[in-house]
Amino acid sequence: MQHQFNVQGMTCGHCERAVVHAVREVDTEAIVQVNLDSGQVSVDSEKSRDAIAQAIRDEGYQVAA
Amino acid sequence: MQHQFNVQGMTCGHCERAVVHAVREVDTEAIVQVNLDSGQVSVDSEKSRDAIAQAIRDEGYQVAA
Repeated sequence: MQHQFNVQGMTCGHCERAVVHAVREVDTEAIVQVNLDSGQVSVDSEKSRDAIAQAIRDEGYQVAA
Repeated sequence: MQHQFNVQGMTCGHCERAVVHAVREVDTEAIVQVNLDSGQVSVDSEKSRDAIAQAIRDEGYQVAA
């Protein structure tokens, strides 16, 4: 399932990797694409949108509702 | 010896940690303080200023001459 998130607070490649790793902790098979400039994070995963959003928030970033 | 660097390109706490780790790879005993807002990096180390500056540059940040 394809989930789209608008994530605020990512400033650099480290942040990008932190978000990707956070999502992969929820789903090791997830395909994650991050656009650092726009804050768009696209996740292909069977896990729920809520579970993925929470993982990104727990990493310290804001996820728009 | 106390070294002061003006480092550009650090945007977040990940960057701060990356710089600290880069310096510690040159000198495991180094005391490193980073001011993310100002870009000031203070390093207490017996290693040369050049060696420390190069480690920070190798990590992907600019160090003012």
